[in-house]
Amino acid sequence: MSSYWNNYPTIHAKIQNVCTLIKQRAHVRNPEIETAIIDLSLAGGKYLRPAFFFLFAEFGEQKDPIEEAKLTKIATSIEILHMATLIHDDIIDDSPLRRGNMSIQAKYGKDTAVYTGDLLFTIFFELVLESMNGSTYLEVNARAMKRILMGELDQMHLRYNQQQTLHDYLRSTSGKTAELFRLASIEGAYFGGADPIVVRLAGKIGLNIGIAFQMLDDILDYTAASTDFNKPVLEDLTTGVFTLPLLMALHKNPAVFKPLLDKKTQMTISDMHQVQKLVIANDGVQLARELAAKFTKKALMDVKRLPKGETRKQLLKITKYLLRRTI
Amino acid sequence: MSSYWNNYPTIHAKIQNVCTLIKQRAHVRNPEIETAIIDLSLAGGKYLRPAFFFLFAEFGEQKDPIEEAKLTKIATSIEILHMATLIHDDIIDDSPLRRGNMSIQAKYGKDTAVYTGDLLFTIFFELVLESMNGSTYLEVNARAMKRILMGELDQMHLRYNQQQTLHDYLRSTSGKTAELFRLASIEGAYFGGADPIVVRLAGKIGLNIGIAFQMLDDILDYTAASTDFNKPVLEDLTTGVFTLPLLMALHKNPAVFKPLLDKKTQMTISDMHQVQKLVIANDGVQLARELAAKFTKKALMDVKRLPKGETRKQLLKITKYLLRRTI
Repeated sequence: MSSYWNNYPTIHAKIQNVCTLIKQRAHVRNPEIETAIIDLSLAGGKYLRPAFFFLFAEFGEQKDPIEEAKLTKIATSIEILHMATLIHDDIIDDSPLRRGNMSIQAKYGKDTAVYTGDLLFTIFFELVLESMNGSTYLEVNARAMKRILMGELDQMHLRYNQQQTLHDYLRSTSGKTAELFRLASIEGAYFGGADPIVVRLAGKIGLNIGIAFQMLDDILDYTAASTDFNKPVLEDLTTGVFTLPLLMALHKNPAVFKPLLDKKTQMTISDMHQVQKLVIANDGVQLARELAAKFTKKALMDVKRLPKGETRKQLLKITKYLLRRTI
Repeated sequence: MSSYWNNYPTIHAKIQNVCTLIKQRAHVRNPEIETAIIDLSLAGGKYLRPAFFFLFAEFGEQKDPIEEAKLTKIATSIEILHMATLIHDDIIDDSPLRRGNMSIQAKYGKDTAVYTGDLLFTIFFELVLESMNGSTYLEVNARAMKRILMGELDQMHLRYNQQQTLHDYLRSTSGKTAELFRLASIEGAYFGGADPIVVRLAGKIGLNIGIAFQMLDDILDYTAASTDFNKPVLEDLTTGVFTLPLLMALHKNPAVFKPLLDKKTQMTISDMHQVQKLVIANDGVQLARELAAKFTKKALMDVKRLPKGETRKQLLKITKYLLRRTI
């Protein structure tokens, strides 16, 4: 785990429990897979989803130790699902890097990557069953898992498509990224024992944070130097995925992009840098930032509607910090 | 669906319902994925696992239409889980063919194959939740899914290992293949409302049928001409998987195999044919057939302990036909 939560000792300790549980569940006879899972879990991920889970759980009443163990399991199930999708995404994208380290598929090959992701899906399944068998939230989890995958599929289906709309982008982003933030927030509030109004608000807040978070990630892909950000720049474009900054610029001035984007898989590195320049020149980054700010503001406004107190203050602070580059 | 069940009109009709449900659930916005799933479901698979599910379900009392729909969902969940593992296995093996057609990864690429498998995992999850939320059988499903994956991982971990034992082979086979036959049989008996003794027997029978079935498949890999059997010959050896006939011959005469197997990924097609000849010359096929016959006999003996009647007769007939080449 990274040092991201050092200033939040309660959250830090709870995330530490999540890390321990991941390590326990990753224990399999195949040492390569076990190492792959543990490496990924230690590779500096921020554990944002479990953190939001635990933050929202604090809106409920105080918990006994049995309840605490259950909350740890649910938070872990969310991080495990996230890890499974990361690993499979890296196969799709042929990504050499993940969290600044070699991706599992680059290090161990696609065979190990496919099965490691699959194993994490089964551990996810196991953890939610252990913690909520009989609850309607099992179906919430199944629906979330499906939405995440549908978001990925939508994105794959839209590759190299210059006709895609902002609505297409929002739908795919709501699935592939925001759904897991929504799930973490809503489950935190629900299983923490919060009021139903708080549970509903939590879902909305999680969704909007997730959307703004993905937009920020997409913006950084067009603005950051590759050393700044733990992954290669313009990675999405390399695989034909047109993210928000490009879409905004493309909608403004389709003609200048057409000759470059028409090349599809034949685009060179120089073509991609050209696209990057055109995105910036056509206000793609600026417009994307404005849209991201709208979602951040929506999230912050809803946070302010939560019950007053220390938790709300923390949530406000963390959300502002996480999305600071959107506002 | 193939014509395999034409002589069993009740089973045939029930499997038809499974096909219809697969088609319904495969409906997604990405037409490539939808086609890939439907193609695979129609490509002449024998639907053995749902068939055993429905056969064992007949040991229970008569069902009302609501119960029938639930049974169809559970049978479908099993076939869907099977399809998901097939698709991901074909990525691992770089298989060009599946069920005599192009594999999904060969036809649409590994990207589509990874996500199609993942989507099927979520549909599996969805179907079991819809049909048995609150039941302890949810955990039975989670454990089964984990065992299947562990079997795959064991097999991957043992590739090119000349020290692997018969116990290693049986453990990996029990997971990757037999577990799903076991799940189908035990769930059929349980959700069909059969007596607990029948449920326990069903699990044992399913497991032994599954083991014999995999052994038969492994034997055919060393004996069939590629036109005979809908996949390339010696496919397992190509990926470093040493199946039963090779293991039996290798244990009998390790020295003759060593120079060939030491070549690992450098083995040529001619080397592999040499291995095949040595397997036959060292009684590998014969010994494998004898071991398979033991598992078939165990299964048949247990079938004979089931309640007398038409269902038992059918089960005996189908099992004998399926495993005829092992006895």
